[in-house]
Amino acid sequence: CREMNGKRFDNVALDILLTDLAKVNNSRDRANRLFQWLIHPVQDKSFFRDNWEKKPILIQRQNADYYKGLFSTAEFDRILRNDDVQYGVNLDVTSYTNGKRETHNPPGRALPYTVWDFYESGCSIRMLNPQAFSSTVWQVLSVLQEKFGSMAGANVYLTPPGTQGFAPHFDDIEAFVVQLEGRKHWRVYNPRCEDEVLSLVSSPNFSQDEIGEPVMDVVLEAGDLLYFPRGFVHQGDCLPDAHSLHITISSYQRNSWGDLMLKLMPAALEVAMEEDVEFRKGLPLDYLQYMGVQNSEKEDPRRDRFMAHIQGLMKKLVSFAPVDAAVDQKAKDFLHDCLPPLLTAEEKAGSVYGAPARWGDSEALDVAVELKSQTRIKLVRAGAARLCSDGDTVHLYYTTENSRVYHKEASKSFEMKTEHIDAMEFLIHSYPKFVSVASLPCETAEAKMSLAELLFEKGLIFTAEPLTAQ
Amino acid sequence: CREMNGKRFDNVALDILLTDLAKVNNSRDRANRLFQWLIHPVQDKSFFRDNWEKKPILIQRQNADYYKGLFSTAEFDRILRNDDVQYGVNLDVTSYTNGKRETHNPPGRALPYTVWDFYESGCSIRMLNPQAFSSTVWQVLSVLQEKFGSMAGANVYLTPPGTQGFAPHFDDIEAFVVQLEGRKHWRVYNPRCEDEVLSLVSSPNFSQDEIGEPVMDVVLEAGDLLYFPRGFVHQGDCLPDAHSLHITISSYQRNSWGDLMLKLMPAALEVAMEEDVEFRKGLPLDYLQYMGVQNSEKEDPRRDRFMAHIQGLMKKLVSFAPVDAAVDQKAKDFLHDCLPPLLTAEEKAGSVYGAPARWGDSEALDVAVELKSQTRIKLVRAGAARLCSDGDTVHLYYTTENSRVYHKEASKSFEMKTEHIDAMEFLIHSYPKFVSVASLPCETAEAKMSLAELLFEKGLIFTAEPLTAQ
Amino acid sequence: CREMNGKRFDNVALDILLTDLAKVNNSRDRANRLFQWLIHPVQDKSFFRDNWEKKPILIQRQNADYYKGLFSTAEFDRILRNDDVQYGVNLDVTSYTNGKRETHNPPGRALPYTVWDFYESGCSIRMLNPQAFSSTVWQVLSVLQEKFGSMAGANVYLTPPGTQGFAPHFDDIEAFVVQLEGRKHWRVYNPRCEDEVLSLVSSPNFSQDEIGEPVMDVVLEAGDLLYFPRGFVHQGDCLPDAHSLHITISSYQRNSWGDLMLKLMPAALEVAMEEDVEFRKGLPLDYLQYMGVQNSEKEDPRRDRFMAHIQGLMKKLVSFAPVDAAVDQKAKDFLHDCLPPLLTAEEKAGSVYGAPARWGDSEALDVAVELKSQTRIKLVRAGAARLCSDGDTVHLYYTTENSRVYHKEASKSFEMKTEHIDAMEFLIHSYPKFVSVASLPCETAEAKMSLAELLFEKGLIFTAEPLTAQ
Amino acid sequence: CREMNGKRFDNVALDILLTDLAKVNNSRDRANRLFQWLIHPVQDKSFFRDNWEKKPILIQRQNADYYKGLFSTAEFDRILRNDDVQYGVNLDVTSYTNGKRETHNPPGRALPYTVWDFYESGCSIRMLNPQAFSSTVWQVLSVLQEKFGSMAGANVYLTPPGTQGFAPHFDDIEAFVVQLEGRKHWRVYNPRCEDEVLSLVSSPNFSQDEIGEPVMDVVLEAGDLLYFPRGFVHQGDCLPDAHSLHITISSYQRNSWGDLMLKLMPAALEVAMEEDVEFRKGLPLDYLQYMGVQNSEKEDPRRDRFMAHIQGLMKKLVSFAPVDAAVDQKAKDFLHDCLPPLLTAEEKAGSVYGAPARWGDSEALDVAVELKSQTRIKLVRAGAARLCSDGDTVHLYYTTENSRVYHKEASKSFEMKTEHIDAMEFLIHSYPKFVSVASLPCETAEAKMSLAELLFEKGLIFTAEPLTAQ
Repeated sequence: CREMNGKRFDNVALDILLTDLAKVNNSRDRANRLFQWLIHPVQDKSFFRDNWEKKPILIQRQNADYYKGLFSTAEFDRILRNDDVQYGVNLDVTSYTNGKRETHNPPGRALPYTVWDFYESGCSIRMLNPQAFSSTVWQVLSVLQEKFGSMAGANVYLTPPGTQGFAPHFDDIEAFVVQLEGRKHWRVYNPRCEDEVLSLVSSPNFSQDEIGEPVMDVVLEAGDLLYFPRGFVHQGDCLPDAHSLHITISSYQRNSWGDLMLKLMPAALEVAMEEDVEFRKGLPLDYLQYMGVQNSEKEDPRRDRFMAHIQGLMKKLVSFAPVDAAVDQKAKDFLHDCLPPLLTAEEKAGSVYGAPARWGDSEALDVAVELKSQTRIKLVRAGAARLCSDGDTVHLYYTTENSRVYHKEASKSFEMKTEHIDAMEFLIHSYPKFVSVASLPCETAEAKMSLAELLFEKGLIFTAEPLTAQ
Repeated sequence: CREMNGKRFDNVALDILLTDLAKVNNSRDRANRLFQWLIHPVQDKSFFRDNWEKKPILIQRQNADYYKGLFSTAEFDRILRNDDVQYGVNLDVTSYTNGKRETHNPPGRALPYTVWDFYESGCSIRMLNPQAFSSTVWQVLSVLQEKFGSMAGANVYLTPPGTQGFAPHFDDIEAFVVQLEGRKHWRVYNPRCEDEVLSLVSSPNFSQDEIGEPVMDVVLEAGDLLYFPRGFVHQGDCLPDAHSLHITISSYQRNSWGDLMLKLMPAALEVAMEEDVEFRKGLPLDYLQYMGVQNSEKEDPRRDRFMAHIQGLMKKLVSFAPVDAAVDQKAKDFLHDCLPPLLTAEEKAGSVYGAPARWGDSEALDVAVELKSQTRIKLVRAGAARLCSDGDTVHLYYTTENSRVYHKEASKSFEMKTEHIDAMEFLIHSYPKFVSVASLPCETAEAKMSLAELLFEKGLIFTAEPLTAQ
Repeated sequence: CREMNGKRFDNVALDILLTDLAKVNNSRDRANRLFQWLIHPVQDKSFFRDNWEKKPILIQRQNADYYKGLFSTAEFDRILRNDDVQYGVNLDVTSYTNGKRETHNPPGRALPYTVWDFYESGCSIRMLNPQAFSSTVWQVLSVLQEKFGSMAGANVYLTPPGTQGFAPHFDDIEAFVVQLEGRKHWRVYNPRCEDEVLSLVSSPNFSQDEIGEPVMDVVLEAGDLLYFPRGFVHQGDCLPDAHSLHITISSYQRNSWGDLMLKLMPAALEVAMEEDVEFRKGLPLDYLQYMGVQNSEKEDPRRDRFMAHIQGLMKKLVSFAPVDAAVDQKAKDFLHDCLPPLLTAEEKAGSVYGAPARWGDSEALDVAVELKSQTRIKLVRAGAARLCSDGDTVHLYYTTENSRVYHKEASKSFEMKTEHIDAMEFLIHSYPKFVSVASLPCETAEAKMSLAELLFEKGLIFTAEPLTAQ
Repeated sequence: CREMNGKRFDNVALDILLTDLAKVNNSRDRANRLFQWLIHPVQDKSFFRDNWEKKPILIQRQNADYYKGLFSTAEFDRILRNDDVQYGVNLDVTSYTNGKRETHNPPGRALPYTVWDFYESGCSIRMLNPQAFSSTVWQVLSVLQEKFGSMAGANVYLTPPGTQGFAPHFDDIEAFVVQLEGRKHWRVYNPRCEDEVLSLVSSPNFSQDEIGEPVMDVVLEAGDLLYFPRGFVHQGDCLPDAHSLHITISSYQRNSWGDLMLKLMPAALEVAMEEDVEFRKGLPLDYLQYMGVQNSEKEDPRRDRFMAHIQGLMKKLVSFAPVDAAVDQKAKDFLHDCLPPLLTAEEKAGSVYGAPARWGDSEALDVAVELKSQTRIKLVRAGAARLCSDGDTVHLYYTTENSRVYHKEASKSFEMKTEHIDAMEFLIHSYPKFVSVASLPCETAEAKMSLAELLFEKGLIFTAEPLTAQ
């Protein structure tokens, strides 16, 4: 029983789901569907109304296979064997015993011989960026990041029976705890005070007497999901009879209104100082005599006037705030944080990765196969490229050359020629529809083709039909 | 004919004025009087109402000796002879001929032999910080900085007859052109556009066709004063019959409301994000789809809601703004910029510089002479020390160990012990009255004495009577 | 027809050769055999006597398949398709037309679509570190580096028919040009002067009239080899009828006696100044009056005495030279430069990479399988680890954690405990023999086992028989 | 009774001596005479034969006024009062009580009020660079540096009766302890071992049981001198009945043959590698197998051959050593270390500092007074300027723009034009004779004059007669 229209996914294994998603032609729809699967049977609307950034929710499914295919300890073992997993970089060995939290990473590569020895002696194993090693995790996160409009990350936690690997603490991200194998006992606690609600920083490790009574005390079984907002204290431990493997999917790190204002306010002030002489006028000659901490308890009408004046300027600042430009600053950071998209076979066939140019029998073949005026193109993903202003110029920022390893590559962008900007905007807003090269709003046919060639060569677009030599 | 009560100074040579000022017991009064002398017969009130930051004013006096004693070419020659004046560091050789502005500094020390050769060949000579070489200039500026609450600087310009040394331009400071010798033809032009009114940056050199018609076209004679605000374009050239020596006294560089807000806004946002959860709440999931430059022409009700929300937060920011702490940041910069005070003989006698401890006949003498409980003390200057908050601690910032060379010394401060803070504030606010050590509001006599000793040893206070061994 | 005893390899495909090498139990023997294959039928002895660092040699084979399997344009096409090859980092596009040498790298990833377009328009393609993408090249170079005792590197060059990609120049390495496909016309020229013989730096591009007449003018066919020493000018161009693919294997970059002395001389002087007072004695009071360039043409007996004295000290320096420590400095650099070894299946089985510890059905299995006293061990390669002195301590430097990308990883080493040093030296000198853990010359059984465990966990040794759970 | 011809200076006060020295026309002679006065009645020749760098010597004079005028505690008190002496920068407060050595510097300026308080409580006062504050000390050191060909420095030590300020230690300089006031008990100890003889580094503080028995145990009275070489341990303490003031004049810090070789050896190796192919030849293929610390105990004939070969190359290096260029490197450091010369009134009159160009009555006067062809010139000091090679160019390094504060100014030099080099060398070697501008060996009269003008403007030469306007 599976329906793709959002209602039931109970028996849909992840690989079938991903195959179906590949047929959806809008990456934002893919993101919505995948997120719906993640929180099923809770509805997107009710989740974001009642839980998101508000309170924890436990989703129990009595279906140990619900998340099957996402990740497993067997795959983890394969990764250790075949890939260069480094202690302290990709993997942490931890323990929390008698109230003491310790890390046991030796230097060098983490191989099964030593990792399983740590596990056997009661240590927890945390894999820090499974998306760099598992294509499925990469794919799931790269789809979900379009749902969140904020980087989606993940950690995997493997815990031996009867042990706990971490002290109680809270994080700076929205957390989706996806139980993959075994079971785990979780306790979740309300934020300890107003200032820790939706905290923008992670906490230190707490002792048990600093955190109060749990508001949730549950056992997560394989196939279950636990969500809690940033700022909620939590701890999980394994029961004596079973190990636990879970993956925590996270998002919304430093993605608050205040974080946007950190970009916006300096820009607003810069504009105001350029455009409004009130901001350039001199301070009162005598302000240091009544303002400042040493004068803060003085009764002085000049203090009141000074306060009123600066508050007036602060309010006036609103009208100079370049909100869209500040959002672009935020967007640039996000595009740098993004995982690169994982293209489907069909998408690849229509992209530069599938172009037929190749080495044949002692010569280069199909080199002349090229885009044509009637070729229909679209962006590889709704969020794979974005026009952002950088002062006087416009740059296209994009995700396709990012690495699966966080910020291993520098932020990628290039300056847009003036003659290409409108067409680029047109292409972005046309998504998910294909549009012909000829339909791009450039002044000349050459400009249309040079933009299309540029985007094609960078892997930012694919064609409705694969390019062929006829 | 001279009166010290502000009305007439016509025949008061500068040294008599300074001698009289030394008898004024409040450094702020000294500053007011010296400034009044500078702009005499214009009144302080009318100057700040009509001219300051508004429009140029020319004050003609028909008294070539009015500013006598402030600086002269003869003193400049003495300085070249006796002090280490370096080309490019302390002195520039410039010319402006046929619309071309050039600098001719050789490397190394500027000696009369080469400087007068440059002058003779038609170059202008600019001395960059005469306060480092002339005690009178130092004294005048160190008094005036208390008037302005902002660093007072100076350049000296010597121009041969029939030449011009600089291209038309505007500066980022309020300028008082004090004609010392000879005469100079000046043309002043209105700011070229709204954005250059009260400009916070200096302009490049302009060509004659970029600046329009002058609003003032005058000849400054020795003893005259020309003031113009920042942003006003100006140029001066010598008539064929006379050289010119003037000193330009400047202030209010980056001392605008906007400059204060550059300190204030980040602090306000930091407080708001800590104290108000509204600033920590996440941005809308989909905001990148309708905000940002690429979406700025979209009609979308979500854009309006987003704009309204962020404007609401910006307004709310006002209530979190730590204005006094931001003023302290500004004050710290000012105290670092300040010239050190030049003490009068009487002030020196009551300070650590006049204490009788000395080397006598093979032994140290008068070492035991010390402050006593009944000793009456006051700050050396109203603005010589200031309590400023640095997060959790309170520091005393002070100017007495600054150098006559701009920022040659690091900013000077020390942390105030909690037990001393109230007493320090009391002492600052008691200025210009002397108060006894005993009257300081500390809990113990030891604390009173240790604060007084500390301030005395740092040269921050002087005593009503010189310390003696009785 | 193939014989492994060095005489004839004519029909031995590279994969068979490598399979045979895997059975050789000493990595130095493997290196000798692989090098013999490279220069076959020339003998190692005669090559190093007559050609190495002396003069070019051409080996023609009339066997286009001799180097088959090492690399091919088809493999290059596969790499472009599947791996992240970046223009300017991993690949250069060049041309040399009408005496002008140009580089045409665009930014970003090199995909077949653009690379073949460049090729088709007459550009040469240089792949900079094929060992990072081809396991066969990696393996061949990692074996050869043990022959040279110096890093072995490689570039691959693909040139279209009738074109030339590079200007005449000389390099700073010994070059083995291995023709893989097609043919290429080569001209080699003697070093232009004494100072360029065995040059330690590469030359700029030369024009044709700066290089004289070639001493060798030949056409290299697939299966042929051309060797020339550093300092020999060379240029290659394709005939109109065939493309060319060759790989240049290089070594001995900055591996001269002088390079060793750059490590040795400062160390020698440091020791001499510590141990011999003659080096600490003061210079003559008046030496500046007769020594130095301004005095170099003076006749002065003091000059002769000074010269004689310093020459005496220079000669004396010989007796303080810590040659072995300087060799260790050189060795450390080499071990950092090395490619990591590529283990055979059998070697892997006996190493930590083949240990049976694994994840089974919800639990960790075979965790207790461990080294025992009677387990026999040996280093993975003769040159994979080296004891070097660092002042007062002894470190083990090793190559096994290096990257296939040059210096991507920091130099790897760890400090040896005193109790392990003799045993480590014993293990190194025992190579290629297996020795039992029990036979290690440590004072205690615990020390023997802890050293063996450490080396095993780092992948530096393998066991005679794979570890099993009995 | 005084004779200037070296024999007796007993009653010559320092100011008379310096006046007489001013009449000596060769700065090297001045240096010899001043040094002779320092060690009188010991002869220069016997001192350098028997004591310098060999063993301590005490010179007792029974003449408390012998060094009068060099420095005094009264002058020290004046300096504290008038100059900006900073604790920790210019002055240290120390104590050595019950075997414990402490430093008591507060932050900020050292004023008599606090300094004499420290002194009174038993602390020693060390002034770190009295030459920056005392013109006499400056003059004495600037003359002596020409004797030593190495920087001459000084510290002043003031010690209260019955105290000791420093723990036993040795220094890295030749020390001349000049007793100025009071008396002090000194104990000097032989270097503790061979490696500390003429040590190039200073020692830590020793305890009394680490230093053995003194080889000298004396009381220094005012007018006495104590010399000891670097590496000799020493300690001084005041007797209960008198304070002590002494100045220690030091030289020969890092001025050994080994220090010159630190410049010479890398240069020698660079030349050898460029000029001799033997140094560019590759190391043996297998050298890492028998060389290095891990092989150092092997018996292997290849080791012997390797050693012999590298020793041969080390010996060969001698012939490539650019000794004069290395001396120039050393000379450049010395010229940067030098104190600037203090010109006599007569020297000043003939130099750029005495040129008559000046500001007169509203105009520049005597600007046209210039060097002429027949003007006779000489360097201001034998060691004030030096031609040094910098690879392909020749620079003139000079001391006249140095600061009295160590390395406050960057090293001063300028490139010599080719046409001036011979003339510059001629001028240097002509010292102390005056030569006419016309006699300079340049090709053109213009070149002669431009060199003379350049040197005159930089203050490097003076004329036989002051320049005048006739």
